[in-house]
Amino acid sequence: MNGNAFGTIFRVSTYGESHGPAVGAVIDGCPSGVALAAADFLEDMQRRSGGAQPFTTPRAESDHVEIESGVYEGVTTGTPIALRVRNETQKSSDYEAFRHLPRPGHADLTTHLKHGHRDHRGGGRSSARETVARVAAGVVAKKILRHEGIEILAWVSRVGPHALASVDALPMASLKQARDASPLLAPAENSLLVEVEKLRERHDSWGGALRCRVEGLPAGLGEPVFDKLQALLGHALLSLPAAVAFAAGGGEALSRLPGSAIRDAIGPDARPESNRHGGLLGGMTSGLPLFLDVAFHAPTSIPQPIKSVHLQTNNVESILVGGRHDAFPLPRAVPMVEAMVAITLVDALLRAGRLRENLGVPAKE
Amino acid sequence: MNGNAFGTIFRVSTYGESHGPAVGAVIDGCPSGVALAAADFLEDMQRRSGGAQPFTTPRAESDHVEIESGVYEGVTTGTPIALRVRNETQKSSDYEAFRHLPRPGHADLTTHLKHGHRDHRGGGRSSARETVARVAAGVVAKKILRHEGIEILAWVSRVGPHALASVDALPMASLKQARDASPLLAPAENSLLVEVEKLRERHDSWGGALRCRVEGLPAGLGEPVFDKLQALLGHALLSLPAAVAFAAGGGEALSRLPGSAIRDAIGPDARPESNRHGGLLGGMTSGLPLFLDVAFHAPTSIPQPIKSVHLQTNNVESILVGGRHDAFPLPRAVPMVEAMVAITLVDALLRAGRLRENLGVPAKE
Amino acid sequence: MNGNAFGTIFRVSTYGESHGPAVGAVIDGCPSGVALAAADFLEDMQRRSGGAQPFTTPRAESDHVEIESGVYEGVTTGTPIALRVRNETQKSSDYEAFRHLPRPGHADLTTHLKHGHRDHRGGGRSSARETVARVAAGVVAKKILRHEGIEILAWVSRVGPHALASVDALPMASLKQARDASPLLAPAENSLLVEVEKLRERHDSWGGALRCRVEGLPAGLGEPVFDKLQALLGHALLSLPAAVAFAAGGGEALSRLPGSAIRDAIGPDARPESNRHGGLLGGMTSGLPLFLDVAFHAPTSIPQPIKSVHLQTNNVESILVGGRHDAFPLPRAVPMVEAMVAITLVDALLRAGRLRENLGVPAKE
Amino acid sequence: MNGNAFGTIFRVSTYGESHGPAVGAVIDGCPSGVALAAADFLEDMQRRSGGAQPFTTPRAESDHVEIESGVYEGVTTGTPIALRVRNETQKSSDYEAFRHLPRPGHADLTTHLKHGHRDHRGGGRSSARETVARVAAGVVAKKILRHEGIEILAWVSRVGPHALASVDALPMASLKQARDASPLLAPAENSLLVEVEKLRERHDSWGGALRCRVEGLPAGLGEPVFDKLQALLGHALLSLPAAVAFAAGGGEALSRLPGSAIRDAIGPDARPESNRHGGLLGGMTSGLPLFLDVAFHAPTSIPQPIKSVHLQTNNVESILVGGRHDAFPLPRAVPMVEAMVAITLVDALLRAGRLRENLGVPAKE
Repeated sequence: MNGNAFGTIFRVSTYGESHGPAVGAVIDGCPSGVALAAADFLEDMQRRSGGAQPFTTPRAESDHVEIESGVYEGVTTGTPIALRVRNETQKSSDYEAFRHLPRPGHADLTTHLKHGHRDHRGGGRSSARETVARVAAGVVAKKILRHEGIEILAWVSRVGPHALASVDALPMASLKQARDASPLLAPAENSLLVEVEKLRERHDSWGGALRCRVEGLPAGLGEPVFDKLQALLGHALLSLPAAVAFAAGGGEALSRLPGSAIRDAIGPDARPESNRHGGLLGGMTSGLPLFLDVAFHAPTSIPQPIKSVHLQTNNVESILVGGRHDAFPLPRAVPMVEAMVAITLVDALLRAGRLRENLGVPAKE
Repeated sequence: MNGNAFGTIFRVSTYGESHGPAVGAVIDGCPSGVALAAADFLEDMQRRSGGAQPFTTPRAESDHVEIESGVYEGVTTGTPIALRVRNETQKSSDYEAFRHLPRPGHADLTTHLKHGHRDHRGGGRSSARETVARVAAGVVAKKILRHEGIEILAWVSRVGPHALASVDALPMASLKQARDASPLLAPAENSLLVEVEKLRERHDSWGGALRCRVEGLPAGLGEPVFDKLQALLGHALLSLPAAVAFAAGGGEALSRLPGSAIRDAIGPDARPESNRHGGLLGGMTSGLPLFLDVAFHAPTSIPQPIKSVHLQTNNVESILVGGRHDAFPLPRAVPMVEAMVAITLVDALLRAGRLRENLGVPAKE
Repeated sequence: MNGNAFGTIFRVSTYGESHGPAVGAVIDGCPSGVALAAADFLEDMQRRSGGAQPFTTPRAESDHVEIESGVYEGVTTGTPIALRVRNETQKSSDYEAFRHLPRPGHADLTTHLKHGHRDHRGGGRSSARETVARVAAGVVAKKILRHEGIEILAWVSRVGPHALASVDALPMASLKQARDASPLLAPAENSLLVEVEKLRERHDSWGGALRCRVEGLPAGLGEPVFDKLQALLGHALLSLPAAVAFAAGGGEALSRLPGSAIRDAIGPDARPESNRHGGLLGGMTSGLPLFLDVAFHAPTSIPQPIKSVHLQTNNVESILVGGRHDAFPLPRAVPMVEAMVAITLVDALLRAGRLRENLGVPAKE
Repeated sequence: MNGNAFGTIFRVSTYGESHGPAVGAVIDGCPSGVALAAADFLEDMQRRSGGAQPFTTPRAESDHVEIESGVYEGVTTGTPIALRVRNETQKSSDYEAFRHLPRPGHADLTTHLKHGHRDHRGGGRSSARETVARVAAGVVAKKILRHEGIEILAWVSRVGPHALASVDALPMASLKQARDASPLLAPAENSLLVEVEKLRERHDSWGGALRCRVEGLPAGLGEPVFDKLQALLGHALLSLPAAVAFAAGGGEALSRLPGSAIRDAIGPDARPESNRHGGLLGGMTSGLPLFLDVAFHAPTSIPQPIKSVHLQTNNVESILVGGRHDAFPLPRAVPMVEAMVAITLVDALLRAGRLRENLGVPAKE
């Protein structure tokens, strides 16, 4: 029980089922003095809903974020920030067939085995709809980080089995531009659009991987031994729907190289002269750009029949999951990854005493 | 600050520096009624110290675990279990050269940037010596799991760039036998011994990967949305020294396949008919065997010169880290991985109310 | 930062300002299988709003609780329960005068000194309006406790300086009947109504004390050494607005008696033969009725002038807090106290592994 | 389970039984840069052991604190501080009679009912011996506070039923002097010595109350709504052995007065002109001196016979608790109260971002 909050000081609690009245996030531990308005959420909400990308769900989600507390006259007050998004387009009847027939590859079965009673409609709490709340909270975290000079950028780095060429060497601004110009949010890579379209026509889907880069971090962030920064980030990102693997810093590649090939000499002013370590040394930031990788499995809601069992009769039946079909949803994961990274980093700054409870107005002690 | 404890109910706090008087773990939240004696720790302590493996550090660590509280007449009482291991073979003078010269590829630099003042001897708190405490706590967790019919087994699955053949199909007992028969704790793979020996002679080192399998788990374990089981396990395992990547369930391979190739049909009694999902569905256990992968980078303490900076003079100098040299320390990580997995699983059982505070004596209410 | 959640497993997070759009609670860690409907909240919401008592605020608060997640077809599912109450009767203009003039005896001043920027309207987050969310969460906790055979009853035991005669000896049902028959929720005491009315006419107010009794508790509840049950209950109850003192078990009276007068002999079946200890021994329940006392200071929002300072001009001015005037709000605190006690006890049961994650449907493992 | 740690960032975990090999505390979350040596602990350890006071236990406890990690060359490093005190004078055989006979008025009975298996010797974990660890951790917290200009002073304010005259008006230095001059640590009150001596001869005991004052606090400390400062302090202090009641700020007296008598006008520079509120407004510090009261029940280990039950035979027997007899142990509680207050305040400063992770050396970011 009790797995719906993340963070030690900057703590985000989320609630809401796919077909309930609303989903939302409550952020406890946000400093006062941060400018925040409903319009701040539009871009990430739009990106998450897939409205701007091809091949993703046709669901037209408006996803307007209402701020229900914690902000007064456009500025945070230090009290809990409640963010709420109503669920509008619900066709619960679509899911009546799955009330007692768990969809293979989904949380339906394990939720049933855990809790006995569940909201089966649209996957209930295990629906990707849940990520609305994370992305909303991430917008707040990103605003705080930007104030501290820290920028986060995630992009699609692998489409199913097709790894894209590295863009690590690009400056942050160029990378952002290239990403935003790609319908797949995969910088400099458009040829795979045709492949994804073919896959969709075959009623199939792909997962893949996202890569994320963070610039402007102070050195020494992260709390060894159990809360090394990669451990906190791994926790955060592996909690996303369909996430199956995570790597940090130099990543998995480091584990294939000899020790002589992975060290970075240290130069004047305590600054590493190269970044093979990918921004992390001993679980703490080095001050150089930080890199992260997350892999997601393909969507299992595809219009191909598969066998399942009726939970009441114990009869095995063939089922077909209809409705929406995301052939390649990874572009929608971009704001989710950025959100979880941002939330983790703000919390790390607060735990280290590097942000006070009052950011905007000089404290009077 | 405050990153030296792990777990919500079964909470393990560790302390101790490499060259201080002792390292230790305090376990808060262990049920009463678990048989525990100093002898229980011997096997994992020996394995962690590398005493039984070739190519690992020649340090002869006895690592005797003293139980200082929480156990009375050989059985846990429900109060905190304090486990303490004295540090015996200390040559602090070996490290005097590195007082102001951070070793590249280590936490020396980032610890300095974070805390200013540090115990530089042997890496202080960032030394692998710290894992003594984790392994000791893991022994307690494994005893509880065994009592519940849950078994954990980790083994070396990749040696530097060399991935070993899959042993997933072996029964648990055969797998354990094969692992224990291998000097590298890599089932059915001895030819790499020669490669590792050559590497050691070249003053270099390898990382690689471990794979872990858990059997006997009940279904429904894990707490979505933020504390999905893979998120908790990822947090736990990515906190190990040198860990750079983690995968759970079907693992990274799943992210390269189409959706049609990764689903498992569900058969009678709500049981998946195959285990492509690797034991996890929607962040909860399915009741089938659980698989995990962790990758570690190579040791950076190799006897090859590299440049570093003097933190007081800001002069760049060439340094040579002498002393022990682990060409391939991954066999030592086997009990560390098993420990962190066991600690995570016991905590997950407790959070779900599946273990009471009194295991051994019928409760009187 | 981060003080708006309570509990380890059964964790209640609240949000909302007095004059914002809504206040709410999110309960994470509630087992599945608990019947819950909007109607369950009516009685405690009505009592909290003071609608049924004389001398309390004339504010007619409907306070309808909307369940936004965690309940499906009338039964909890184990996912977060989001409870939301809209704020309807807002006259923010009443408070414009206090934007820069902190009301003495309120949190206005300290909130300003802490956060710089605040929602001054109606006290913002420090308004008693915040307790709506607690009381709502308490209703859920009381339903779980009732299912376990545990009953909680709080009543007014002191009106300003006037302590009422002890009713500890009454059976629970009679006590409840006597309480509910009293306009002051003070069993068997109506003569003070006249005193309170006089006080109100003098533009003044009274605090006092509440006493609370819990029956049906299992023995051994509470987690020494830091989370003794009285410590957890004290934390919970001292967090209520205007709470100034707390006592548990035998209470403060015990501290005035010699050791020979406070012990209870232990009889057959490990049962104390009397209850001088008030249900607590060594921080754990004994299985006998548990008693608690909480004292509250008088409301400071009274229509008598007092000096304050203008936070921008630093000029001292005389201010008069108008609007509603609660001469004796303690009856409204009855459901608040019951709520905080219930929340604490459900969490204590969960921490001890005495409630599973699935209450209503037999677990399938 | 899991009640042996306190604090969110500055987190103190304790372990150890009365008759085990050692008791200890691990502090996670202490900033680097604090000077700390074994000698710092002497005064409070001596006071806790009662060596300097009459009427308290004759047990001659040396209680030397060993620092096992977290301090290098006399200064904290930011890693966990492990403090360990060996138990030396153990006569376990004294307790053999109580193995199956719970002592009335003690935790023996409830520990048995909770955990089934327990270390009965000397009360095990429920012994006052446990407070050694708290007091040691408190010494570290007090050093940090002193560095911030914050001073804590506790004293005996009531001896059994005899309340001493208020000393609130004394300056801090005079108060400390008066306290330290009194054998009872009760400023300006020695006449009760005779009473206590008579009580001891009658084989009886007294509890009473301590009062505590804190000066130098910044304004705005405390985290409403659930972690108001009085709630955190109440939690901390009610966790002490034998604590039965707690009051904060203006205390219980406030709850007996009309609203018109408890407000403090606010003067220039946002400073209250009087301190009826006792340093707390709305759960946050006002910047004026903070006052706290804690009441303790009398020791129940007195040499007078009482009935108990044999837990195996269910026979009721008369038992006599011999050995040490503290007629009035409250002077020993003085360092315990100061410790818990200090720990709570350091944690509150850290949660508010008012202390960084590195106190002594300028951070390099």
